[in-house]
Amino acid sequence: MTKEPLGIGLIGCGTVGSGVARLLLEQPGRLASRAGRPLSLRRVLVRDVSKSRAVDLSRDLLTSDLRAVLDDPSIGVAVELVGGVDWARRAVLDLLAARKHDRAVAFEAAVAGGIPIVAALSQSLSANQIISLQGILNGTCNFILTAMSDQGWGYSEALVEAQKRGYAESDPTLDVDGTDAAHKLAILAQIAFGVGVSADAIEHRGIAGLHQNDIRYARELGYTIRLLAEAWLDTQAQNGKQLALHVSPVLLRHLAPLAQVRGAYNAIHVIGDPVGDTLYYGLGAGQMPTASAVVADIIDLAVGRAQQTFRTLRLWCSNGAGVGLRPSSTVRCRFYLRVLVRDRPGVLGLIARELARQEISISSVIQHEALDEHEGDIVPLVIMTHTALTGNFRAALAGIDSLGCVNPPSVYFPVAD
Amino acid sequence: MTKEPLGIGLIGCGTVGSGVARLLLEQPGRLASRAGRPLSLRRVLVRDVSKSRAVDLSRDLLTSDLRAVLDDPSIGVAVELVGGVDWARRAVLDLLAARKHDRAVAFEAAVAGGIPIVAALSQSLSANQIISLQGILNGTCNFILTAMSDQGWGYSEALVEAQKRGYAESDPTLDVDGTDAAHKLAILAQIAFGVGVSADAIEHRGIAGLHQNDIRYARELGYTIRLLAEAWLDTQAQNGKQLALHVSPVLLRHLAPLAQVRGAYNAIHVIGDPVGDTLYYGLGAGQMPTASAVVADIIDLAVGRAQQTFRTLRLWCSNGAGVGLRPSSTVRCRFYLRVLVRDRPGVLGLIARELARQEISISSVIQHEALDEHEGDIVPLVIMTHTALTGNFRAALAGIDSLGCVNPPSVYFPVAD
Repeated sequence: MTKEPLGIGLIGCGTVGSGVARLLLEQPGRLASRAGRPLSLRRVLVRDVSKSRAVDLSRDLLTSDLRAVLDDPSIGVAVELVGGVDWARRAVLDLLAARKHDRAVAFEAAVAGGIPIVAALSQSLSANQIISLQGILNGTCNFILTAMSDQGWGYSEALVEAQKRGYAESDPTLDVDGTDAAHKLAILAQIAFGVGVSADAIEHRGIAGLHQNDIRYARELGYTIRLLAEAWLDTQAQNGKQLALHVSPVLLRHLAPLAQVRGAYNAIHVIGDPVGDTLYYGLGAGQMPTASAVVADIIDLAVGRAQQTFRTLRLWCSNGAGVGLRPSSTVRCRFYLRVLVRDRPGVLGLIARELARQEISISSVIQHEALDEHEGDIVPLVIMTHTALTGNFRAALAGIDSLGCVNPPSVYFPVAD
Repeated sequence: MTKEPLGIGLIGCGTVGSGVARLLLEQPGRLASRAGRPLSLRRVLVRDVSKSRAVDLSRDLLTSDLRAVLDDPSIGVAVELVGGVDWARRAVLDLLAARKHDRAVAFEAAVAGGIPIVAALSQSLSANQIISLQGILNGTCNFILTAMSDQGWGYSEALVEAQKRGYAESDPTLDVDGTDAAHKLAILAQIAFGVGVSADAIEHRGIAGLHQNDIRYARELGYTIRLLAEAWLDTQAQNGKQLALHVSPVLLRHLAPLAQVRGAYNAIHVIGDPVGDTLYYGLGAGQMPTASAVVADIIDLAVGRAQQTFRTLRLWCSNGAGVGLRPSSTVRCRFYLRVLVRDRPGVLGLIARELARQEISISSVIQHEALDEHEGDIVPLVIMTHTALTGNFRAALAGIDSLGCVNPPSVYFPVAD
């Protein structure tokens, strides 16, 4: 080992930052042998240098001034782990501006924590046209869904347990409403399809308030509910290639690989041509799994791989030109629909008529006796449709929800087959 | 795109070779954009240039002389896909000798076809000490086991179906006796633990002749049988780190991720510190999945990543010095044991005594009425043990199989919990 150490500046020392610092300080031999040179932690930028921390950092590593990192010529890699958007963005731009040569950004940890999905899409599957991508990208939601399914808990009960275990924030909104998964899907869409799309432009529904009964009915029909971030490419569209993107709770067959993903785990199912199906599974969050991905990026930068990958990624982007976004109304799939109806003759006929008007046929129907949502003579009617245009399904749904015998709003989810 | 093309020489044009040729010829634009330069097929070495092929190759690409590849200065990457050992080894050594600079070997396709397990272990998990690795590395065996379990078929029936579908060779020995999985495990052990071990040194049992009844009893106990290649590191051993390696049918709990892997798929479950559990899943064989891995390697070579990874791999090897191989007799695990016994009083007591002599206690017992293996008064006795030393278990087994009331040989498998 004769090479110069690679100096590292850490921007932020929260949960993941202290994990990265721990790895760098506790495993210098392992990391040096894999990076081909020592990795040396030179600066740790924190808001308050006097605060006590989980990781034992010598006082002279700490600074609260970004300049101390920008101006340190011994720092070759800066690691931004601050969270938030505005300050972090400015810091990254300043850090890039402070260097003229060999600039590259690596971001394996940005999606699915310890799962090397960015490397898979940008390197290992580089011979492929990605056809589709289905991801469980939010461990909080997957934990809640698994607990509701396995323990029979209600949504609120499962959320409280997720908060107790540290899987959910005290304000869980961005996780449970699907926003976080949409952010991650935007990153994956960029790498896999070369399509630049803002997370705001991705339709997303979350799991907040999901009813235990829907989990039960789905199970009875042979399905498991998972919050999926999905992208699929239509190469046969009239006006060029079109990419559909959405985040939604989806019914998956019990034996589907993603249906088996339990608890706080993440997984991404990628179909490519020529590789076929592949799946990547692991912990999508947490201190050490995420630190594993961050330090792998640092090693890739030390070795020189990350710089080359970054150059290829840019080329790859231009490759995506010509891929348009597909309006969700034009996507075809099956639907699960639960309607609360007054228990009287002819109701099923009225609902079937609304579906038929939109050319949607029914694949199966369950009418149970009322469970706990029983109020007066209101009972749930569960319908699985055959494949339909999403736009048609939504129009039928509006018709159904305005029927006098229906207690709106009805609940629906796409079904993946 | 101003860069020079990268010239490619293909050694062998069988199933995988023609897949690689097809990708190179049919997707020049996609591959050039990802490699940063055109990939240009310059030579295809075949035994018989006049034979007709699945892929449409111009006659002047074909040669039957390795010299045509060795002496062509326009060839930057040679791809060996011949199969076999002796000729292929000499060809690779000749090809490496023909170049002096920037020599590197990439071999993603050598294990688990389209699954990027080599990249995961050598790059994405580079911050980790790998703790254990469990792989379904032979799709033929997994197809047979899944068919036996789902269809209730016998071993021979499932093998014939695997042959019909092209998953099994007409002589399936190397697949079904575990040799193929042991070869792949040796490669993974080298990358993950830096331990050079010959496949011959890895104890392996296959699935040939596996009895349908064992699949049924295992299911009844809550387990699924899979042929696993396993490596696990003991960092607490008295004489330094020790690595245990084996290939064997193993009982996995129904909900374990690897138990869900069905049909001809492969998967590898890797536990690392700090990343925790990760799993990689996909098609482990077949023309196009394997070609996907080969072409990803070519792109990595074009970009320059593969050369850097290759240098790091060598460093990584030296890191493994000091890891010894652990004798299987010292590995502790639970066991599934099926003994055919004469149905008379006291037999269970005799067997329990043999186990107790080796300090092995029984976790559960099933004694069924005889199924199809019923012969006279012979009935199967199925025992699950608590954790035991493998050496002790084997000694107990020898004792059991020499009891007068037992019809040897008894059948046993390790249990993964």
